[in-house]
Amino acid sequence: MKTAILALALLTGLPALAQTNEPVVEDFTPSSLNQPGKLYPAVNSEKRVRARIVAPQAQSVALQFLGGATYPLTKSDDGAWVGVTRPQDEGFHYYQLVINGAGVPDPGTLYFYGGSRWGSGVEVPAQDQDFYAVKDVPHGDLRSTLYYARSANASLRCFVYTPPGYEKDLSKRYPALYLQHGGGEDETGWGSQGHAGLIMDNLIAAGQTQPFIIVLANSYVPGAGGPGRGSVATTAPTGATNSTPAGGRGGFNFTAFEHVLIDDLIPFIDANFRTTPDQPHRAMAGLSMGGMQTRQITLANLDKFSHIGIFSGGSIAVSNITDLAAFKQKVKLVFVSYGSRELGGNRGGGRGGFGGDPKANTEALKEAGINSCFYVSPDTAHEWLTWRRSLLQFAPLLFKN
Amino acid sequence: MKTAILALALLTGLPALAQTNEPVVEDFTPSSLNQPGKLYPAVNSEKRVRARIVAPQAQSVALQFLGGATYPLTKSDDGAWVGVTRPQDEGFHYYQLVINGAGVPDPGTLYFYGGSRWGSGVEVPAQDQDFYAVKDVPHGDLRSTLYYARSANASLRCFVYTPPGYEKDLSKRYPALYLQHGGGEDETGWGSQGHAGLIMDNLIAAGQTQPFIIVLANSYVPGAGGPGRGSVATTAPTGATNSTPAGGRGGFNFTAFEHVLIDDLIPFIDANFRTTPDQPHRAMAGLSMGGMQTRQITLANLDKFSHIGIFSGGSIAVSNITDLAAFKQKVKLVFVSYGSRELGGNRGGGRGGFGGDPKANTEALKEAGINSCFYVSPDTAHEWLTWRRSLLQFAPLLFKN
Repeated sequence: MKTAILALALLTGLPALAQTNEPVVEDFTPSSLNQPGKLYPAVNSEKRVRARIVAPQAQSVALQFLGGATYPLTKSDDGAWVGVTRPQDEGFHYYQLVINGAGVPDPGTLYFYGGSRWGSGVEVPAQDQDFYAVKDVPHGDLRSTLYYARSANASLRCFVYTPPGYEKDLSKRYPALYLQHGGGEDETGWGSQGHAGLIMDNLIAAGQTQPFIIVLANSYVPGAGGPGRGSVATTAPTGATNSTPAGGRGGFNFTAFEHVLIDDLIPFIDANFRTTPDQPHRAMAGLSMGGMQTRQITLANLDKFSHIGIFSGGSIAVSNITDLAAFKQKVKLVFVSYGSRELGGNRGGGRGGFGGDPKANTEALKEAGINSCFYVSPDTAHEWLTWRRSLLQFAPLLFKN
Repeated sequence: MKTAILALALLTGLPALAQTNEPVVEDFTPSSLNQPGKLYPAVNSEKRVRARIVAPQAQSVALQFLGGATYPLTKSDDGAWVGVTRPQDEGFHYYQLVINGAGVPDPGTLYFYGGSRWGSGVEVPAQDQDFYAVKDVPHGDLRSTLYYARSANASLRCFVYTPPGYEKDLSKRYPALYLQHGGGEDETGWGSQGHAGLIMDNLIAAGQTQPFIIVLANSYVPGAGGPGRGSVATTAPTGATNSTPAGGRGGFNFTAFEHVLIDDLIPFIDANFRTTPDQPHRAMAGLSMGGMQTRQITLANLDKFSHIGIFSGGSIAVSNITDLAAFKQKVKLVFVSYGSRELGGNRGGGRGGFGGDPKANTEALKEAGINSCFYVSPDTAHEWLTWRRSLLQFAPLLFKN
């Protein structure tokens, strides 16, 4: 059996099944992101993931991480396919099962939008997971809100986090953070796998940040290209594809989103929520593609935003700033972060078109007299634990001046 | 090929593939519940569903409706499996794909909780779908809200619909409807596949109902049995099951939910939302199991609820009422509804333990001097279009006296 698996791995280029080669600590518990009552996927103290699916007539089943390794499962006598991965980074990982060549969600998990699809996620408990745990503290609400975007001629959904106490003192007004997802993700990410609401609830309960509103919008604007909702074709030919041409990762049409954000969403939020509707009380941040959008949109709209956060999405160089004096006067914070495992690669090292070395850029901003901060998430890559931690570090720095 | 399919159908008991036997109108369009950019499943003007999945190494793929028929797909030369179902009822249907014996969600759709699982849904456009369409009218918010349930010693999630204008006139208070899902469903159902928010937005914009708050809670209480979140085991043995013993359809522990609702949730809502916190301004309704809960909980708590709705979940007979005079004085509405295709069967005809003939029971209430209403949804069964229409009929009758 072991030989057969190794031969399969060699033939297919898939990594050998970890459990056939390495001892595995048998202390697996169900992933916290499983559906109610589901035991698999499960994670052990070594941060390995064990998958299991009943597929009695299948010839091959594998677990495939999004943008990562593929692990073939093996068939048990009871018709279930089981396998164990190598140790994974702490935090959240998108994955799918591949059953006889068909990539499908694992029926054991809740589903999350990433890689331009709704699919499975598994959570490897992080050492510091307490900062996004559900605690018996006052909780804010995460509101699913529809707004009409004139620039897109469509009703669009956003989510709005309102902090605990929002309904108590109805005379109080709040600052607002516009917080964007990454490429292939959508407006659900920060509230779901990002745990933005829980991070804020816990920070506020500990007195570590002031309460503010967070607005989560979809960067993909219908009709503007990319995998947004508006790109669905109106007829379904019996053709050779399951997706529209725009159904994959589309172009980064930042201009369309800038119009929606500046012309439609911010006025809607200021009209329908108790914001303090001015530049000193408005921030923008985002992860990956959302960080790139944040850079472009804030630099072009310094009269709208005073605080800027870029998580795993580049940085701002002094040379990007056309009027340094005006920037210093208007911008109260530039926060840049990365996962430690991104740095040195294409994304972090600035050799991949993300705008130069992020640490050096951010230090240069500080030397130029701009309040800036560079944060590195330990032992994480381009993934949600990096971004949860980035929000944890970023939120307390907001709206202090 | 046709012979082979028919033989397979005879051998397995599966229905024959519709498209091999019947002409199919080629005007399929993607289901409105598909993921962004996904063309399948698609629905045609005959209300047939066409599924398609790329599974080049599979030997069998089928579409299986929850509680309904299974349709085998056939393999095309390009490795995709395609098939067409017989015409379906209008509205929403849960389903899954079965690939070589493994039941999995269709990667083309959004996911919905029903049948005690997150899985695929397909929407067959209804003639009257306009009443839950997204329109350019003022929209309420659907808020994901955490509340601490002392009786369950857990932080639980509910959703709260607040009507348009809730943030405008901060002196205004609102009645509240507690609206429950069915068996194997959860607190997400009414806001997602139920379209409760859109139904209310459109009714309010048309002046057909007064605005009120809707509270959507999970009937399954952790630790109380049933497929609630609390039933997840803490260890995952390499065993012969993917679920805990409580992971299937558990017992109907209405008492545990009654405690959560009466002792924890209603006080939380009244403390954190601008309700009018009294019996005349509080209603309860539910579908299927939620209707049965509504009957039991309202009859036991007439000091808490004045308006009662039971959708496809039985009815209230005069003989269920211990003190008719008190009931007449306290209860301002009893609304009972069914899909036309349920009536006469076990669920509707009262021969299955749902408490007697619902139409006769409701008429008897009216004869006894109680404001009551019996509604039948045309050409629908035990499914969400019945319940969307039930809410459409029920909402305008609420809180009028």
